[in-house]
Amino acid sequence: MKYQALMLALSAIIGNQVANAAEPIEIIQPVKITDPDKVELGKMLYFEPRLSKSGFISCNSCHNLSTGGVDALSTSIGDRWQQGPINAPTVLNADFMLAQFWDGRAKDLQEQAGGPIANPKEMGFTHQLAVTTVASMPGYRERFVKIYGNDKIDITRITDAIAAFEKTLVTPNSPFDKYLAGDQQAISTDAKAGYNIFKNRGCVACHNGPAVGGTMYMKMGLIKPFHTNNPAEGRKAVTGKEADKMVFKVPTLRNIELTYPYFHDGSVWSLAEAVNTMSNVQLGQQFTPEETAQVVAFLKTLTGDQPHITLPILPPSTAETPKPQPFEQ
Amino acid sequence: MKYQALMLALSAIIGNQVANAAEPIEIIQPVKITDPDKVELGKMLYFEPRLSKSGFISCNSCHNLSTGGVDALSTSIGDRWQQGPINAPTVLNADFMLAQFWDGRAKDLQEQAGGPIANPKEMGFTHQLAVTTVASMPGYRERFVKIYGNDKIDITRITDAIAAFEKTLVTPNSPFDKYLAGDQQAISTDAKAGYNIFKNRGCVACHNGPAVGGTMYMKMGLIKPFHTNNPAEGRKAVTGKEADKMVFKVPTLRNIELTYPYFHDGSVWSLAEAVNTMSNVQLGQQFTPEETAQVVAFLKTLTGDQPHITLPILPPSTAETPKPQPFEQ
Repeated sequence: MKYQALMLALSAIIGNQVANAAEPIEIIQPVKITDPDKVELGKMLYFEPRLSKSGFISCNSCHNLSTGGVDALSTSIGDRWQQGPINAPTVLNADFMLAQFWDGRAKDLQEQAGGPIANPKEMGFTHQLAVTTVASMPGYRERFVKIYGNDKIDITRITDAIAAFEKTLVTPNSPFDKYLAGDQQAISTDAKAGYNIFKNRGCVACHNGPAVGGTMYMKMGLIKPFHTNNPAEGRKAVTGKEADKMVFKVPTLRNIELTYPYFHDGSVWSLAEAVNTMSNVQLGQQFTPEETAQVVAFLKTLTGDQPHITLPILPPSTAETPKPQPFEQ
Repeated sequence: MKYQALMLALSAIIGNQVANAAEPIEIIQPVKITDPDKVELGKMLYFEPRLSKSGFISCNSCHNLSTGGVDALSTSIGDRWQQGPINAPTVLNADFMLAQFWDGRAKDLQEQAGGPIANPKEMGFTHQLAVTTVASMPGYRERFVKIYGNDKIDITRITDAIAAFEKTLVTPNSPFDKYLAGDQQAISTDAKAGYNIFKNRGCVACHNGPAVGGTMYMKMGLIKPFHTNNPAEGRKAVTGKEADKMVFKVPTLRNIELTYPYFHDGSVWSLAEAVNTMSNVQLGQQFTPEETAQVVAFLKTLTGDQPHITLPILPPSTAETPKPQPFEQ
């Protein structure tokens, strides 16, 4: 199985190099917003704590747009402070992922958005209560009419709007993008050396494309075992196949300086340690301290412009709005 | 004691009418920001979850600027989901209050800001760890140098910056302010009738000044007992005097439509019910349903322009930043 995975990795390198003759990493372009009303509604819902049972947890609680689209915790805090099972992936550039969640169990952002709302360990609500909540407020209803042509509110439309907002959360203009665009001064000599290591020693086998990741699934612990106490099984939980155990979606490395702690178990806080672990367990290599520092310097050039978010003002609850139940079982 | 308190209330009416010949409620003016760098730093710290032990709770968690500066819960959720003792007051227009917290135990916003950070039931951190956290990040250190002239970081400066931001959180241009400024069309006939009831039946005795409250302490249950399961003792906790039991700071009624649930125990969700309870236990009066509806119509004219907040981008943690401890005891 290890051999197969390695071959898969190698064929990915080759395939990728054919597809992108110049560089395995593509420039991220700023988003053109075509439906600003839907994006604004989606932003309101993204910041809406009343989509949770407690009235306290919103999408932004764990995918905090002040901190790289993550909560910067090993695993997240859910309803009644339950400990989440896995590290929260960043929402930034998430639309570039081939699927959502670490195990890819949601095909896109819209499908993903419905998950945490109804997960008893996350927002602890139900889709029906989320719909009732949103539909109870004239300030929401009139937006649905304007955007969708009528006031039908269901979880499909709620998650459609959230996904429309999330699609705008890209981070262009990183120093590395400027370098790719031809500005040789945009990144340091160390970062350039790090990028060469990244390309020539195998990292790009998995971390490629516009998001520097998110284009494939890969086994964590490809060459040597990755030791973790986290019980997540990866793709096996989706496919049922033993061969998919510990196979996860390759995470994006965009904004990686902001999205610590690292790995699906959130066990590593230092970028240098993450690079050393990955080169070891995925590539069977031992980078020198200088090489590690150079790769880290490269990775830090992947921090782009963070989304400029004006905090939404949410409409007040009405007598019809379900009451939050923060302390009820 | 009831008689004394009633006299106090009546003398407040009279005193107030002398002071403000025209109206007992004053127009709120937009804030002029004189130190934008400090306000920006304060905003960052206001949204900074790393000022809590868990790395999950910021000032904005319970004083959410998307929802009227409150969490819209009866009592707040603190570290490890502990239930707070009292309803979170709004941060909006809080600088107009004569003191901070329901019992006035902090003399101003700066003193208030240090409270929740170190309260084991709220953010659960320590001032020393908060200082270490902020000082660990170059992105913060350089701002302190620019604002304060050197890189000394202590809780005094941290709370000074937070207070500077909070002082900007005023809500001008409410329909009622426009009415006070002379625009007779700014509020409805019902709202005008409600304002007359509010003035003539005694509400303004306590709810006066620019914030329509916050100018004095008053016993909750002045004429008839206010029944609650909440154990808060009010000013007695500060002064030690039995006479101060159940005496609380009069809350602002600015943006009251947004700052449900009402009262220090957060027991009432409907504005009409709150008006009926207050007229009954504080004034010994029974409003007709029409009168109540008119007072509610007036109260809804007190919703002003909500602060326009651009979400701050927070600097990444460093190796020196204390790690969050969300699940450790």
